[in-house]
Order: sequence, then C-alpha cells, then structure tokens
Amino acid sequence: MAPSRLATYTVNGAQKYGAVTDAGIVDLSARFGKDYPTLREVIAAGALMKLADEGARHQPDHALDAVTWQPPIPAPEKIICIGVNYPDRNAEYKDGQDAPKYPSMFMRTPRSFVGHNAPLVRPRASAQLDYEGELVLVIGKAGRHIKESDALDHIAAVTLCNEGTLRDWVRHAKFNVTQGKNFDSTGSLGPWIVPYTQESQIADIRLTTKVNGETRQDDRTGRLIFGFRYLINYLSTFTTLVPGDVIVTGTPTGAGARFDPPRYLKPGDVIEIEAEGVGVLKNGVIDEA
Amino acid sequence: MAPSRLATYTVNGAQKYGAVTDAGIVDLSARFGKDYPTLREVIAAGALMKLADEGARHQPDHALDAVTWQPPIPAPEKIICIGVNYPDRNAEYKDGQDAPKYPSMFMRTPRSFVGHNAPLVRPRASAQLDYEGELVLVIGKAGRHIKESDALDHIAAVTLCNEGTLRDWVRHAKFNVTQGKNFDSTGSLGPWIVPYTQESQIADIRLTTKVNGETRQDDRTGRLIFGFRYLINYLSTFTTLVPGDVIVTGTPTGAGARFDPPRYLKPGDVIEIEAEGVGVLKNGVIDEA
Repeated sequence: MAPSRLATYTVNGAQKYGAVTDAGIVDLSARFGKDYPTLREVIAAGALMKLADEGARHQPDHALDAVTWQPPIPAPEKIICIGVNYPDRNAEYKDGQDAPKYPSMFMRTPRSFVGHNAPLVRPRASAQLDYEGELVLVIGKAGRHIKESDALDHIAAVTLCNEGTLRDWVRHAKFNVTQGKNFDSTGSLGPWIVPYTQESQIADIRLTTKVNGETRQDDRTGRLIFGFRYLINYLSTFTTLVPGDVIVTGTPTGAGARFDPPRYLKPGDVIEIEAEGVGVLKNGVIDEA
Repeated sequence: MAPSRLATYTVNGAQKYGAVTDAGIVDLSARFGKDYPTLREVIAAGALMKLADEGARHQPDHALDAVTWQPPIPAPEKIICIGVNYPDRNAEYKDGQDAPKYPSMFMRTPRSFVGHNAPLVRPRASAQLDYEGELVLVIGKAGRHIKESDALDHIAAVTLCNEGTLRDWVRHAKFNVTQGKNFDSTGSLGPWIVPYTQESQIADIRLTTKVNGETRQDDRTGRLIFGFRYLINYLSTFTTLVPGDVIVTGTPTGAGARFDPPRYLKPGDVIEIEAEGVGVLKNGVIDEA
C-alpha cells in the first residue's frame, strides 16, 4: 500500500488540507477544519494518522491538477535549515578548515517558500539562484533537551525541500547567510507530508536533484554528517521544538554553484527533488515581475 | 503629554493587550479583541493610533504591577536582528577585516524572548549569557522594494530589545550565529510599543544599557552604520516586510564579552535597556531549572 500523504493546497482561493491519493485529493479540512485549522494543528493534536485513515475511506473531492499546492505547514513556528551536512560539502568551501564540530544552521521565513509545481522566482537583485535538494523532518511532539535515544519519537512526518539560495547574497555580510536564503518564493516545500512511522523511512534513503532531467545531486541520508537523532538532540539544547516545526536537514554535493562555470537556475528550468518513499517535489523558474 | 504606549500582557493566565498610563493599564482587548486578536492585527489594520486614543479616554483596568508583561507582538511573521551596526563594534571582532559593505543579520524565534520584568534564563548549556541593548522597529505597512525615501512610512512603532546572546554558542558553527541567538527566554522585548509618528523619535536618540546600575552601553542611534531607512530598503530587497515584523537594529559597543575578563550575566543581575522617548526594559536573570 502506498504511504499516506497529506497536503495543503488552495482551490478557488481557499486554503485547505487533504489526503492525496492516486485518484485525487480528499478534502479533510471540510471534515476537520473546525478542530484543526491547518496541518500544524492536526500534528499538534496527534491526529495525523487518524486523518490519513479517514482520507483513505473517501472518494476524492479534487483532481490532482485542480489544486494549487502550498507548503504543507503554512505557518510553522520555526523553519530551521542545516548547512554543510553531507560529505564533500565542507571541502567544497575550499577554506582549508577542518570539518565542523557542530552543525551550521539558519532560519528561513515561510514566505521564502512556494509549494509543489509553483515556480521559484529568480529575483531582480541576483541571477545566482541555485537549487539545494533536502529531506525535511516535521516535528510532532514538543520537547527540550531531547535525548538522541528518544529523538525519532518527536518526528511527525517527512517532506522535501528545494532550499533555493542566492549565492552572491549569502556572502553579503561578515557573518550569516540570512539574506541569500530568504528571498521571497525562492525555495519550495512539499509536495506533501508523509506521516513518520518507522526509522527506515529516513535512515538511509536516496535523495536526488535533477535539473531539466539531468541528475545534479545524488546521495543517501545514511551519509549525513550530523544525523537526524543528533540534530533533534542538538537543536533542543537551545530551543523547545514544537509541533509543526520544520527542520531542513542539509543538501548533498552538486549544487549549481560548484560547477565551473557555475550553473545557476534560469527561467524555464525544471527542478525535481526526489526521495524514496516521499515523492517528487517539482518546480519551474520564472523571473520576478 | 506622554507618548502613547501599548503593551501585551497576561493577567490570570489570559493574554491581553492594552494602553499603558502612569495610573495603570486600560484593557483594550476587552474592547477590540474580536476585531484584532493581538497587536499584530491592530497594526495590520492601521488602528494603533485609534486604540491609543481610546486608551486615553478610560480609567485603568489593571495596576501596572498586577500584570505579567509579554513581548508586544506575540507572534510576528519574522524577527530580524541586525549585527555589527554601531561604530567600534566591527573593530571589536579584531579579525583585521574592513567594515562590512552590507549588514549582517540573523533571525530569532519569538520563543527566545520574554517580556519586561520577566527573568532572562541562563541555560544549562552555557555560562556565557550576555546582554545587547537595541532599538526595535515594528513594521506597519507591508512592502517590497521599499525606497529609502519612503522607508519610514512603513514603521508602525518602536520598542526595545535586550538581544541576549550565548557567546560560545554563536561560534559553534562554520557560519551563522543562529544557535547562540536562539536559546529559549534569553532575550527580551518591550516593555511596550510606542506608535511611530515622526522621525525625531528614532533619528538620534540615546540608547543605554545598565547592569546592576552600571552603564555598560551608551550610544546614539544617529551613529548607526546602517541607518533605519537603509535597513528597510535593504531588507525589502529580498523579503516582503509585513505588519508586525520586528527589526532589531543592532547594539552599541560594550557588551560583557568585550571586557577582559568578560563580564557575563549571572543569576541576580538586573539589566536595564533605556531609550529616550521609549522607556526602560528591565529584566533579571535566573538559571534554567
């Protein structure tokens, strides 16, 4: 049986969430929206599997091509992105520094992401829009000082991210990559979330990025420098993780900036991020109006 | 006449907002809460001055010492903090680098802040809790690509921040200060917001930080490296600023880390951030339980 998949989408301008089947989308916000306005509240109530089961019992309300896909969690409390977390990525920086002892991280605004099938926007300010395919954990159970042995119990679901980046703008400042990571509509999240039930869903799955059909990134999550258990433990040392929090876990080597000459994204390009058991997150590119 | 002041607070466990007078707080959420659940919605509706005026027409509902002060905007879309933005701060890094061409910036979660009078929490993970007094702009009018000449029209209000920082944890990673800036309850915002009506409220005001009565930071906003108009213009190059967004504009020289030996905060210390025309943001320090 295919894994359960829950998505956030708009139809006729209204934001909804539902269960995604091969035949279409079952509108769950029509049935549960009063109790849970968004998937964030579904997750906080521990109701993700209940709704997935409910979704499997109904005929679709919408055709798959009749909706506009949105990031699955519309307004997470925080979106934390991990940098430099696959082998060879540290070496790519060519700064002669040893591999880092702790993960580098930064935050992104929800506004910097679009959903599946929506175009990424190459901004007026830079032509250096680049892709980064990443696996994403969505937190289900709140916690601080979470032990590595308990860490996976705090995951509600997994999804994908194209953590789109303006390469010149991440180097604008003395410290921090904030601005190059937060241009409006330059990344994507989705296409949906898959409820997390077992470690094999994330432990060593293949993650690939294709641009116009050509594979640019291809690695396995088993090779992460800072693994999922460690990340949840480390993050919860300083912040309380809460339901709906989005953790973007890092990208393999092979982003466009690493080619010589660099291969940045341009209007008309199509980027597909794929992970086994999750799906394919696909986006085009347009220029900012 | 004293400037209008609007605050968010809890009383008997319920979150409210109101107008602050010398005699006490006028509960405005009892009168306007249906239309505007929080001050963020008040600001988005352009109703800040209307509510301030309304507040001036009523007797207080609460004594000043009967409420628990909260950060004025409970859940902003984004909290962007500017680093290294007063003279001498760049030199403090002693890395031989020229003054930066663009501002450095990072984001903080709402959860990393407490309100006025609440204790900052020195975490288990580090004894290097440090203060940073800063003036804060709260955005009133949404915009992208905002011209410097129009920038101040986008400000709804001003407030203060103690942008508390764990010094060792900002250096954990190859890039980015995220973790050292985001420990739960290590900074503060408040005590209230003062509606912005004219440039003289922010253009060249004195900003001081005292620890246990001793002045540690003392500078004027007229000396900012990246001024308020520039910051709003620059930020809006990459992100759409929206009502309620919080911009923490940088701290003067004199944080505890810059003393030899460093003078970090410890339980029992009292930190007061003061700016002319805004007020005094005061917090103690306790150890994490």
